[in-house]
Formats: sequence, structure tokens, C-alpha cells
Amino acid sequence: MNRAALFSEIKQKSSFLCVGLDPDLSKIPKHLLQEKDPIFSFCRAIIEETAEFAVAYKPNIAFFEALGPKGWETLQKVEEIIPREIFTIADAKRGDIGNTSKLYAKAFFEKMNFDSVTVAPYMGADSVTPFLEFEGKWVILLALTSNAGSMDFQLIKDEKGKPFYQSVLEKSQSWGTPENMMYVVGATRGELIAEVRKVVPDNFFLVPGVGAQGGSLEEVAKYGMNATCGLLVNSSRGIIYASGEKDFAKAARMEAQKLQAEMKRLLDIYL
Amino acid sequence: MNRAALFSEIKQKSSFLCVGLDPDLSKIPKHLLQEKDPIFSFCRAIIEETAEFAVAYKPNIAFFEALGPKGWETLQKVEEIIPREIFTIADAKRGDIGNTSKLYAKAFFEKMNFDSVTVAPYMGADSVTPFLEFEGKWVILLALTSNAGSMDFQLIKDEKGKPFYQSVLEKSQSWGTPENMMYVVGATRGELIAEVRKVVPDNFFLVPGVGAQGGSLEEVAKYGMNATCGLLVNSSRGIIYASGEKDFAKAARMEAQKLQAEMKRLLDIYL
Repeated sequence: MNRAALFSEIKQKSSFLCVGLDPDLSKIPKHLLQEKDPIFSFCRAIIEETAEFAVAYKPNIAFFEALGPKGWETLQKVEEIIPREIFTIADAKRGDIGNTSKLYAKAFFEKMNFDSVTVAPYMGADSVTPFLEFEGKWVILLALTSNAGSMDFQLIKDEKGKPFYQSVLEKSQSWGTPENMMYVVGATRGELIAEVRKVVPDNFFLVPGVGAQGGSLEEVAKYGMNATCGLLVNSSRGIIYASGEKDFAKAARMEAQKLQAEMKRLLDIYL
Repeated sequence: MNRAALFSEIKQKSSFLCVGLDPDLSKIPKHLLQEKDPIFSFCRAIIEETAEFAVAYKPNIAFFEALGPKGWETLQKVEEIIPREIFTIADAKRGDIGNTSKLYAKAFFEKMNFDSVTVAPYMGADSVTPFLEFEGKWVILLALTSNAGSMDFQLIKDEKGKPFYQSVLEKSQSWGTPENMMYVVGATRGELIAEVRKVVPDNFFLVPGVGAQGGSLEEVAKYGMNATCGLLVNSSRGIIYASGEKDFAKAARMEAQKLQAEMKRLLDIYL
């Protein structure tokens, strides 16, 4: 999917909502455990009820990988039922030397048909660029994450006072373009989103950390939105575990709709 | 496996050789393609012929993941046939926020029975520590890698002139101990191995980049060895693709034996 198609979907739905699929057998409603593939049934119901309000889905690969080979079959089935006009993100945080990264890219872009993969930058150019060689596919590079540990390394300043995550942003600008590279930018610090936006004015941000992790949607929009929206804001647990009962999909729908309404308001103000 | 058992294996075999399993359908001998699971047959033959000289095996997870769900079944079978006294490394370069890293740990430590996983440090403490909560299991943290891109970020100096990889070494010392944490330290720069050894005197290093990537075994031993050896030196392609014909396993054996003989010499000098 290209950027124009993604922006078109955003405008049509008045939404920049990404629904994170973190399906956990110990958290999904009990009645689903009788199904042949409970995780698939869970994800399918969530997708069916939220697709009207979401412009992206982000399966968290660890939740599937932890189930062994069957988990990968489930992941493949989940990817296949996501409507084609909705952007798909394999949240895998991969990254290795060149020939190995190429294989990870094949796993997510060819063996499966994801639009994008999240990639960790630590190993530098040749760990990232193999993902960029696939036409119409995207890298979502970790820049500034929203977890507590993000402060351990990402904010270390170099000899000129530049924080490490800014070196990642700057260097990676020569690897990809706003047509095939997005950045993970945590929402827990509004002023930092503005800093990131200054360095990379045109790229999309994937923003985790709104809701459960404490970020404010208003701040994200205010500091992060650009002329093509430039934001995919993720919510996982707040939506998919809105209810642990038989009404879980309807409850997920309501949460997604609530976020979409707020996003519509923010698009009207800031776009 | 604990450190004493690993060191005991090193002494018994006079070897610190790790054999990297990067099985590629386009590179394995053609006659194996008729087998039911060519990748498994290939790995089994390699393991049978090299186990006498190796103290560790390191399946590169991307090569299995690229084959889809069946690849994970193969990986599981490969892990199961590695003799228990030999250290196993899931070379997966994982790392995510806490609850997600925990699931990756479960995938490799519980669903499968690997002794260790390679982990990327970018997301900080809570992305690494969940792997350290498993008794007898190890994290092998990326510090100084051997690829070209390693220079993009790992050598950036902070305000006090400290390179970034040293911050990773120092900070991570409070997360684990030499009993559950190793570091990936590339072999392409002998003098840097000495620098790393100064910061983390007791931890094991997993050293890629000897052979195909151009590092020198002599330099690694000279600058990196400590009182419990402290080194696992990996060779992948140089061993497993020593021959592309029916004699591939015997050829792999000869290459492994050659490296082991050199390692024996170096252990006699530097241990």
C-alpha cells in the first residue's frame, strides 16, 4: 500500500486508529476456548467489529510466536482476513545482518502479505535496508519508544548534545523515503513528538502508548500531525480487552468508535 | 545450562566453537531436496558430524521463520536433536516492551528448550530483563556487532566520549550476571574486543565474524579470553557450506575439526 492510499483511507474513515492485536489465551473470553482456534476466532470477531473505524491492524508477533508453529498458522489466517484497504503491521521488532534481515522481510512480505514490519535500528543500515527493497512495503523503524526502558539508551546525548534517537532519525533518512519508512514514536512525552516531527516532517509515525501507557491523543495530534495526517495511533488492550465476556467484540467496537470520534475531532482541527 | 557446565564442555573438547545453522534451501546439496524435510535432514547431518568439535549450536531463526509454520516445526526438531551437553542459541535478535519480551522468552525457553536467545538492546531494561527471569537460561545481548552497519550507531560517542556500545555494556551489567548474560562482540576489530573485555571481564562473548566476515581467531583469543575461556566463536557458512555435494557433512566435519585444532592451540596459550 502506498502513502496516498493510506491517507485516502484516513480521510474516508476520519480516523488514524491502529488496532493492536495482542491475543492472549489467558485474557480472551472463556467461551472462545472451546473453538478450534480460539485466537483466530477472537481476532476475527475484533476485526469484524472494528474495521469500520480502523485504518491499520498491528498483530504483535510475540503473541503468535509463543504458541509455536500453530501460532504462525493463526497469524497467517488473521493477516488474510484483514480487508485489503486497511494497512497491516507485523509488530516483530526484527533486525539482523543483511542476508538475515532479507529473510525476515521475506517471511512477512512474501510468505505472508503484511504491508509493513517494525524494525530495530541497533545494527545499522544493512539490517534495515533489506526490508526496503520490497515494492509497496514499509519499514517502521524504532525511534523513540514508549516503555520505561526507552530512557536507558534512546535519550543518551552525543558529543554535540544530540540524543541518540535523533541520530537514528537522521541517519535513516538516507535509507528510505516517506513512501516506505515510518517511525515508532512513543506518545508518553508530547514535547518529544514535536522534536521528532522537526527532524522528519513528512514520515508517518506509529504511536503506541496512548491509553494503557498513558499518552494523550490531543498532544499527539497537536505536535505530530502533518499534511497527510502522518499518524497511526495504536490502541491494543483498551480495545481488544474492553470486555472479557461474550460481548467482547461489541465492547471493542464501542471503544474503537469512541477513539475514532475523538480522532475525527482532531483531524478537523489540525489537518 | 550454567557457566560451569559450559566451561567444562569447553575444556573437555578443547574447543570454543559455535556452529551457526543458517540452512538455506537454495544452498543445501541438491540431493537433499527429495527428503521429506530437507532442512531438517541437512541440519541433522551437520550436527551429527560436528558435535564432537562444537560446544554450541546457533540456529539463525530467520532461516526457519522464512519457511512459514513448517519452518518452526523444523526448528523445534533441530533443537531437540542437539545433544543436551551442547549449549543452544536461538539467534533471534528479539526485544520488545516487557510483557511482549516475556512472550518471546516463553517461545524459545518453554515452547522450545533453547539455552539462550540473542536480544537487541535498543528498548532498554524492560525489553531485556524478562528473558533473565528463566532459571538456567541466558540472554546474549547485542553489544558490538560485526556487520558494516554496526558503525552507524554503536560507535557514536556520548558527551563524555564513551561509545554507545559501552553504555549498553555498562547499563546491562545491573540487569544480569556472568551466569545469565553474554554479549555479541564482533571479531572484525581486535582492539575493540580488548576494550569490551575491560568493561565486562567475566561475561562470555558470542563472537560472529570469524571466517566469512574476516575476523582473526588469534586476535579474538588474545584479546578476549578470560579465566573461564569466556568465548564462543561462531562459524556458519564456512562449516555448513564447506561442500555443496553429497560429502557436505564430512566436509563440515573437516572444517569444524580444523577450527577446533586451532582453538586447542589458543586455549593452551591463553587460558
